[in-house]
Amino acid sequence: MDIIPNLNNLKVKLIGIDTYHENNIYMREDCHICRSEGYTALTRVVVTSKGRSIVATLNAVYSGLIHHDEAGLSKEAMVQLDVKEGDEINISHLHHIKSLSKVRSKIYGNELDENSYFEIISDIVAGKYSNIELSAFVAVCADDNLSISEIISLTKAMINTGLKLKWNKTIVLDKHCAGGLPGNRTSPIVVSIVAAAGLTIPKTSSKAITSPAGTANCMEVMTPVDLSIDEMRKVVEKENGCFVWGGSMQLSPADDLLISVEKALDIDSEGQMIASVLSKKAAAGSTHVLIDIPVGKTAKVRSIEEAELLKSYFEKVAEAIGMKIVVVFTDGSQPVGRGIGPALEAISVLSVLRNEKDCPKDLKERSLELASKLLLMSGKFPVGEEQKIANDILESGKALEKFMAICEAQGGFTEPKVGQYHFDVLSENDGVVKEIDNRKLARIAKLSGAPKSIGAGLVFNCPIGSTISKGDILFTIYADAKGELEYAKEYLSSVNDLIIIE
Amino acid sequence: MDIIPNLNNLKVKLIGIDTYHENNIYMREDCHICRSEGYTALTRVVVTSKGRSIVATLNAVYSGLIHHDEAGLSKEAMVQLDVKEGDEINISHLHHIKSLSKVRSKIYGNELDENSYFEIISDIVAGKYSNIELSAFVAVCADDNLSISEIISLTKAMINTGLKLKWNKTIVLDKHCAGGLPGNRTSPIVVSIVAAAGLTIPKTSSKAITSPAGTANCMEVMTPVDLSIDEMRKVVEKENGCFVWGGSMQLSPADDLLISVEKALDIDSEGQMIASVLSKKAAAGSTHVLIDIPVGKTAKVRSIEEAELLKSYFEKVAEAIGMKIVVVFTDGSQPVGRGIGPALEAISVLSVLRNEKDCPKDLKERSLELASKLLLMSGKFPVGEEQKIANDILESGKALEKFMAICEAQGGFTEPKVGQYHFDVLSENDGVVKEIDNRKLARIAKLSGAPKSIGAGLVFNCPIGSTISKGDILFTIYADAKGELEYAKEYLSSVNDLIIIE
Repeated sequence: MDIIPNLNNLKVKLIGIDTYHENNIYMREDCHICRSEGYTALTRVVVTSKGRSIVATLNAVYSGLIHHDEAGLSKEAMVQLDVKEGDEINISHLHHIKSLSKVRSKIYGNELDENSYFEIISDIVAGKYSNIELSAFVAVCADDNLSISEIISLTKAMINTGLKLKWNKTIVLDKHCAGGLPGNRTSPIVVSIVAAAGLTIPKTSSKAITSPAGTANCMEVMTPVDLSIDEMRKVVEKENGCFVWGGSMQLSPADDLLISVEKALDIDSEGQMIASVLSKKAAAGSTHVLIDIPVGKTAKVRSIEEAELLKSYFEKVAEAIGMKIVVVFTDGSQPVGRGIGPALEAISVLSVLRNEKDCPKDLKERSLELASKLLLMSGKFPVGEEQKIANDILESGKALEKFMAICEAQGGFTEPKVGQYHFDVLSENDGVVKEIDNRKLARIAKLSGAPKSIGAGLVFNCPIGSTISKGDILFTIYADAKGELEYAKEYLSSVNDLIIIE
Repeated sequence: MDIIPNLNNLKVKLIGIDTYHENNIYMREDCHICRSEGYTALTRVVVTSKGRSIVATLNAVYSGLIHHDEAGLSKEAMVQLDVKEGDEINISHLHHIKSLSKVRSKIYGNELDENSYFEIISDIVAGKYSNIELSAFVAVCADDNLSISEIISLTKAMINTGLKLKWNKTIVLDKHCAGGLPGNRTSPIVVSIVAAAGLTIPKTSSKAITSPAGTANCMEVMTPVDLSIDEMRKVVEKENGCFVWGGSMQLSPADDLLISVEKALDIDSEGQMIASVLSKKAAAGSTHVLIDIPVGKTAKVRSIEEAELLKSYFEKVAEAIGMKIVVVFTDGSQPVGRGIGPALEAISVLSVLRNEKDCPKDLKERSLELASKLLLMSGKFPVGEEQKIANDILESGKALEKFMAICEAQGGFTEPKVGQYHFDVLSENDGVVKEIDNRKLARIAKLSGAPKSIGAGLVFNCPIGSTISKGDILFTIYADAKGELEYAKEYLSSVNDLIIIE
């Protein structure tokens, strides 16, 4: 009996601090609760309001920021508890988190069973783990530390701790790309073709974490993507497909938390990546999924051997959860399309959908290849006809029509606009483009403001093999604010080996 | 060239938030720096002022708490940067932390060399690691994941990344106790005897993290313990010994950070524990160290086999860093002494030093045993005489005299006072005490306010084997505030099997 009601109540004070997914509570270290309970900075406590509870980390306040009878909460904590300023909250001890003993067991080198993963992931989803605990779990699961049966258990746990969509269809398609090449925005085109072919493809996408844009950032320029599950369902029932941001769904909610820690540690975890991808797709109700693995020197997967191993894992886990998948390897040596950044990628996508003469051919071909694979997987068309069907749908304008219909269903279409400031980067030599540093290119797009500034980024004009004359425009940087353009230019002036022309 | 000076400057606003060792910076997410640099909540940034730099985690402010040209800093960040309100700080990107690639290598299962540990520990001490990164490192080094040569490398790295004390003596003694039994406050007595014998013993101690009191909490009741290195040196040069809080020293500064993560994860890491203990002692300039390992059902080390293994590790690492150690096993089955809590333990200690008739015999005997071992280790006394010498020093009052002299040198002695509120817990049966739950007993002491309320805790009257009659006082709870006494009583009324009498 650690909780003594009434004694441990405080009033919420709005302090306006956003700590992303971390739940923090700001309490006076000399308030009666901290003193009597022995709470100090970083103590983990349970905060309860009207029957809802979260676990939060204590930040001790020693200024007049809050009074003795008040507590502040971080943004996410206020959302999760659904409280506003003046509401009463109760603070109590965090009891033993049982699943942490399983994490310790994994730290100590043991293999965990399906039930252990379910307990761990359930507690992570419930927000009971601190960043320290989350990081320890991620670290000991990294690399190849998960057996194939553990990856299967983790995937199942991630599916079963969130919502699951059901569609009244035997075939529900989806696609996923494993390695982020700049500008590789095939999904809007692929979804449009597949949906126009009468197949169901409830696509959810992510926003950029370290890149200049994710599919959700790009689509957001043209249509609302922040839909509820019910709204998404209506769109898909009407139009067969959608372009929705997965972050607002409660599909595999553990995923965002695990990914944020992996990004912070900059570690690859095969097991977690596979569980992440397949759990999101399974939770979205997909039965047939196409996995695109770009392979190349600057891509995430650098060799065919690596790609083959990854493929075999994907196949085993998919089989265990009853999902049909096809894994394809694509060229990962350079950016795809022309635009890099939300609106600029949207312009490339529209250019392909509108069959403009100078549309980026590589983006078009890649999208057609993936779309025809999905048509084949569906089993609804004569084998061998899929490429022609995909081509016809795109070139007849049916894909564009479907794209616009989906946007309408999601809340309307807006034409993308580039940033009002721009700067042309000219070649200083004659020659042929030999190599491109995708990371540095992405960095320029980010410094110019992408993805937050939607019109920012760059338009890329010199794919590998292009013949370039001195004075040609290699790429153009766009920005919504003059200062941001300057940032990108400053970086540009300091960088070497961005585009090698020989 | 990521840093653009002047553009990226903000003024410090005092916001008064303590996040323990985490460096946080509070910035408006719509300020020009966050917008142009793309910083969002939890981005790690470099904060610089007058040539000093720290790494801090960004907490995004979306209220009027701070203005666009201001930034708040957590308490520790302000201390480390040595800034006050109104000072100008510069915010820049955190460049690649090279040693993290070594952490990743360890995550991927590789053994690290001495230089890698030095790089990792240097960056940890410099505050470059986030909690997430620290936790990943601690998790993959936990259990028996460090080879003996890695433990040696870690120990050396921890010694070499902090200050090192040198004493003009060939023999410098110290002691350490591996497992916290409640009330086991031998150090003040042992140091007094050893220093009175003319030997050098520059003892540094820790404060409680999860227990009702550490040696530093107990000593703090009677004398200032928060000494600078120079002040400590003067005390030891004058009186041969000291009772100083190690936290204010820069001896093995990585240790506090690693321990805080281990505590949070509740994992035992043999390697880190050994490195922690021996690095602190070596940095304090000790040449001969006595390690006391209490062994018992409720102690940290539960069996003789475990204790023997730990002993062999301690011996190997000590040898590698050129330190002489002796490891002894002591009884870990029940609390030691009578008082539990800062002032109450101080009263037990003084009772032994003052040779009071009813002083706690177990505390006295244990202290004499350890002191005589140290006398023997010094080689300064005839072998076989050490117990008699230790006894004489204690019983003649010389130990008390030395204790008081050290307190005087540290800033004066204050007589400890118990809390003004108390409650006697009476036996409900006749019988003999069979078993005591040390954890629950410690919890009662903590709920009563220890260690923050220095007079709080309990006085324990019924060691195992005592014959008890119904109505006898088993223990007395003390508190400095009435509310805190109530907390302890509430818990007491809900708890079972605290003291088993049959």
